[in-house]
Amino acid sequence: MNRDDPEGAIAQAAKACSNWGRWGEDDRIGTLNFLDDAKRREGAALVRRGASFSLSQRFDMEGPQNGWRRRTNPVHTMLDTGADAALGNQGFPHGLGGADDVIAMPLQCSTQWDGLGHIFDHGRAWNGRDAATTVTSAGDLVTGIEHMAPYVAGRGVLLDVGRVVGEDGELPDGFAVTEEHLAATVAAHGVAVGRGDLVVVRTGQLSRVRRAGWGDYAGGPAPGLSFTTAGWLHCTEIAAIATDTWGFEVRPNEFDHAFQPLHQVVIPHMGLLIGEMWDPDALAADCADDGVYEFWLTAAPLPITGAVGSPVNPIAVK
Amino acid sequence: MNRDDPEGAIAQAAKACSNWGRWGEDDRIGTLNFLDDAKRREGAALVRRGASFSLSQRFDMEGPQNGWRRRTNPVHTMLDTGADAALGNQGFPHGLGGADDVIAMPLQCSTQWDGLGHIFDHGRAWNGRDAATTVTSAGDLVTGIEHMAPYVAGRGVLLDVGRVVGEDGELPDGFAVTEEHLAATVAAHGVAVGRGDLVVVRTGQLSRVRRAGWGDYAGGPAPGLSFTTAGWLHCTEIAAIATDTWGFEVRPNEFDHAFQPLHQVVIPHMGLLIGEMWDPDALAADCADDGVYEFWLTAAPLPITGAVGSPVNPIAVK
Amino acid sequence: MNRDDPEGAIAQAAKACSNWGRWGEDDRIGTLNFLDDAKRREGAALVRRGASFSLSQRFDMEGPQNGWRRRTNPVHTMLDTGADAALGNQGFPHGLGGADDVIAMPLQCSTQWDGLGHIFDHGRAWNGRDAATTVTSAGDLVTGIEHMAPYVAGRGVLLDVGRVVGEDGELPDGFAVTEEHLAATVAAHGVAVGRGDLVVVRTGQLSRVRRAGWGDYAGGPAPGLSFTTAGWLHCTEIAAIATDTWGFEVRPNEFDHAFQPLHQVVIPHMGLLIGEMWDPDALAADCADDGVYEFWLTAAPLPITGAVGSPVNPIAVK
Amino acid sequence: MNRDDPEGAIAQAAKACSNWGRWGEDDRIGTLNFLDDAKRREGAALVRRGASFSLSQRFDMEGPQNGWRRRTNPVHTMLDTGADAALGNQGFPHGLGGADDVIAMPLQCSTQWDGLGHIFDHGRAWNGRDAATTVTSAGDLVTGIEHMAPYVAGRGVLLDVGRVVGEDGELPDGFAVTEEHLAATVAAHGVAVGRGDLVVVRTGQLSRVRRAGWGDYAGGPAPGLSFTTAGWLHCTEIAAIATDTWGFEVRPNEFDHAFQPLHQVVIPHMGLLIGEMWDPDALAADCADDGVYEFWLTAAPLPITGAVGSPVNPIAVK
Repeated sequence: MNRDDPEGAIAQAAKACSNWGRWGEDDRIGTLNFLDDAKRREGAALVRRGASFSLSQRFDMEGPQNGWRRRTNPVHTMLDTGADAALGNQGFPHGLGGADDVIAMPLQCSTQWDGLGHIFDHGRAWNGRDAATTVTSAGDLVTGIEHMAPYVAGRGVLLDVGRVVGEDGELPDGFAVTEEHLAATVAAHGVAVGRGDLVVVRTGQLSRVRRAGWGDYAGGPAPGLSFTTAGWLHCTEIAAIATDTWGFEVRPNEFDHAFQPLHQVVIPHMGLLIGEMWDPDALAADCADDGVYEFWLTAAPLPITGAVGSPVNPIAVK
Repeated sequence: MNRDDPEGAIAQAAKACSNWGRWGEDDRIGTLNFLDDAKRREGAALVRRGASFSLSQRFDMEGPQNGWRRRTNPVHTMLDTGADAALGNQGFPHGLGGADDVIAMPLQCSTQWDGLGHIFDHGRAWNGRDAATTVTSAGDLVTGIEHMAPYVAGRGVLLDVGRVVGEDGELPDGFAVTEEHLAATVAAHGVAVGRGDLVVVRTGQLSRVRRAGWGDYAGGPAPGLSFTTAGWLHCTEIAAIATDTWGFEVRPNEFDHAFQPLHQVVIPHMGLLIGEMWDPDALAADCADDGVYEFWLTAAPLPITGAVGSPVNPIAVK
Repeated sequence: MNRDDPEGAIAQAAKACSNWGRWGEDDRIGTLNFLDDAKRREGAALVRRGASFSLSQRFDMEGPQNGWRRRTNPVHTMLDTGADAALGNQGFPHGLGGADDVIAMPLQCSTQWDGLGHIFDHGRAWNGRDAATTVTSAGDLVTGIEHMAPYVAGRGVLLDVGRVVGEDGELPDGFAVTEEHLAATVAAHGVAVGRGDLVVVRTGQLSRVRRAGWGDYAGGPAPGLSFTTAGWLHCTEIAAIATDTWGFEVRPNEFDHAFQPLHQVVIPHMGLLIGEMWDPDALAADCADDGVYEFWLTAAPLPITGAVGSPVNPIAVK
Repeated sequence: MNRDDPEGAIAQAAKACSNWGRWGEDDRIGTLNFLDDAKRREGAALVRRGASFSLSQRFDMEGPQNGWRRRTNPVHTMLDTGADAALGNQGFPHGLGGADDVIAMPLQCSTQWDGLGHIFDHGRAWNGRDAATTVTSAGDLVTGIEHMAPYVAGRGVLLDVGRVVGEDGELPDGFAVTEEHLAATVAAHGVAVGRGDLVVVRTGQLSRVRRAGWGDYAGGPAPGLSFTTAGWLHCTEIAAIATDTWGFEVRPNEFDHAFQPLHQVVIPHMGLLIGEMWDPDALAADCADDGVYEFWLTAAPLPITGAVGSPVNPIAVK
């Protein structure tokens, strides 16, 4: 890989990994096509104990965002409160009181899915579409995340690369997770990864910032997937992959002047569903305990019409 | 039931159905306590075909809200677009383009869960807490919906009362669904409802407004649960219940001067998790086809800190 | 004027009225260049009694917006309240209590100025700039309304066309105000209109909807400036003009298939500052009383960086 | 002044400076009552050159807010853009293109007025009202800033305390501006301050942070009015006062454990209109040049119904 030529490397990887046309001209869900009913039956069979885990961070003003490109933390405000109810300010009959609330937030502010309209390569969106007419100020007119609404439920696999490869369960910032690291983790866990799976990669960075403070979690140095894993992401035919980091791929990126080059391959060319800022820690502790790294995973995006991303509360059940 | 005395009826039902203290003084999740690991194992075993269904309406400006008490439809705006990417307006290297987005919405605007801090009775919140200090302008400081994050996954049951009791699959507006109607539906479906279940009631109103336009869907006349079902909701020990209507209970309410009296019993006194504006139609059609009205249901609220409600995309898998 | 050819008519008017280059290649304020210090001295001399008038509608959920193109009414929510203060929920020392608030609103939702980046003609913005790179998802990068911040204060003139030409002080919906009507009003008022003036046109539609309800105020039929007034708007060299209607120009527009053709001439080609949804009624009543239709007017847009419009509370002093 | 007893000092000052009842039980505008038509005539006569100045900071993500109590910087997003217009994405006829935008912001985020419902003393709001029922989750039901809409235009006076008392034109953080400093500045400027005036105090802190970065501008140490100026603020019978700092009064406050004690006196007890985060620098440079520190000032709040504050673009004309 030539550090000087991200554009060439991206073009080469895009060509090697392209899924354009694979599911027809009208496809709107990309690699979610790999997640079929059979896979869901397989996933559901993994529920043995009935223990459930949330893989979501909390959504509030204490989140990691720092305003980059107008990405803020969620602002939650109340339309009605218990205070007003108790004081009789609400005008409801027979002692009824109520509280309502409002949120204003970037869809990329915390635990989320990137929609297929989130990233483009030279003006091309997923399946070769023209980015200019696919994602306008009115939103993603073709591949809005609402089209994925029913599908993101299946077999989940945790790859705790932090625990297997890192020290004290954590990879350092700037650590590029390669295919070899993924293979070693798969082997250590004794778990298979393949077609239609929903893969969760734990680097341990979130555990670290939970201890040490957010610092540059949002956009700064971080462990993450190496650009070189594009082939693995393609060949395994997984349906989706998520990490506990802001940006999924290793940062700084592995080219001299680059920004999220792996995104540029996997979203527009592969149609891969990418999750970011997930919190796998409670699940990972359980997996380390019982040695079982596969589970039923439901991570349904909110069907916000035309959205290029969605907050999500992924639920794993073992 | 005396139409003149909602306050008395509420007090009586509240006393009969109270769960205050049942799960300790510190409880934050109410009837979700009924949904245990055994129940989840039972629910997961219902996945036979692997078919998945979203029970969510879409979140957009075409929704039902009309501004009542500042409840609006979601406003989704773009921070970056494919148009700007294609025009080279973004300043990213190597042909990368991106789209990001923002949403502003009431948490009660579309398919949702009511949190336990959503309704009060004479200044009392769930478990007997003081509403005035539990839900302030800073949000629900005790029973915020984030505390339910990992738990809302279990055995789902659809009670298609519209199909069983209504004409052409729909109950008329103002139709009060009683315990008898629920029992008849349970019997017709050949399905049991009990402790820890997540019950979805289809009245058919959403099918009707989908055809005819929203009209007064948000707050106007609607079929829904009769006030008299409080006992059934309590005795069955279900974990949660959701409807395809704006307000869960029948409207106009069954008292002369009243507003959502059943809410006033089941949320603060029972700690019951209530869902509204769900879209069960695709699932209901499938259930009518195969005669199977139970399934695995995941309906995870977004863990918005201090929220008294949450949008949700419930996923049923059969 | 050929009703069949709005595009031709717009091209012709644009050519006749263009101010491109008039104030140099870098101009960001258009006809505000006409409003100079001498004009301000003239305007200030009009303060005789010291009576002040607001020409703004109120900003709240009761406004005229209906969601067209995601234009909503303002949503105002509280971050802290007197209720919480009184209950001691805020944690401040020595009996201090506070209330804070938040607003979410389209900048075009109520009494406003259109910025110069608000309207384009065939991809061209004010002064001949490329719309594609001038107004991106990041806002108006060149002619953002912040550049007008210090300037919008000068001599104001009210043309109460409703009172002069209409019946009972109001023009009917669909009434096109022509140069002749403007001239008749100027004559009736005994007031001059010229270079650098800030002109307020009252049609009376706002008085009518205040009585009768909003109806289609936002986008429906309305009295307003005729397309044929483009020449008058240009030759008078006024600095700005505002109306009491949603859209400034007459609606339905005066072509068979058209949308706001006068905007397409006066904003991108003339660089004219346009105000909409102003409330001149209190001022107009006073002018009718004392027969004085000129005054000191300050109507400063909020300097929102990159905005293509701004809410405004215009203050007239006589 | 006893540093140990803010509560006692506040009570004493409140008693000495109270205007409760002065303008009747129904008063909603406090010291704006001092600003009458005669004062406006006097103010308008100060327009000699016609030069106009904006005293507003820009409203954008680069502002000083850091999230304290959910106060964020303004988030401005586009509903339509020139990029989409140029690409033909908008569906308008005859070559028309448009751009629209939206803002979400705290009303206290940048250059602003504090409304009379912004601060309470022991549960009491302006004029002795009960804070609990005056400012609820529905907003300020009595003294909302909309009631001030027409009035904030009159004689402005700049007191450039930074230039007169400070070094290099700036007071250091923590510097308490006393009555003596104000008097010295008045004398140095040769300007009178009295009944109905709109006073702008420049400390120079904004000039400093403009150079050095925001740092703790929002809530940290700052020069500002001493608690001891309450009497001066009362006796002068000024209509309003604004500073170039976040919080008007000196910070840290002059008591051992206190938060904004001067606010607690002047807003609820005096009904004084307070401005914060104004930018007087361009005006101050001009005043230093010509030695004239009085001018016509219009600073009209947006009439947001029920608001306890408003962004404002104050316009001074000399």
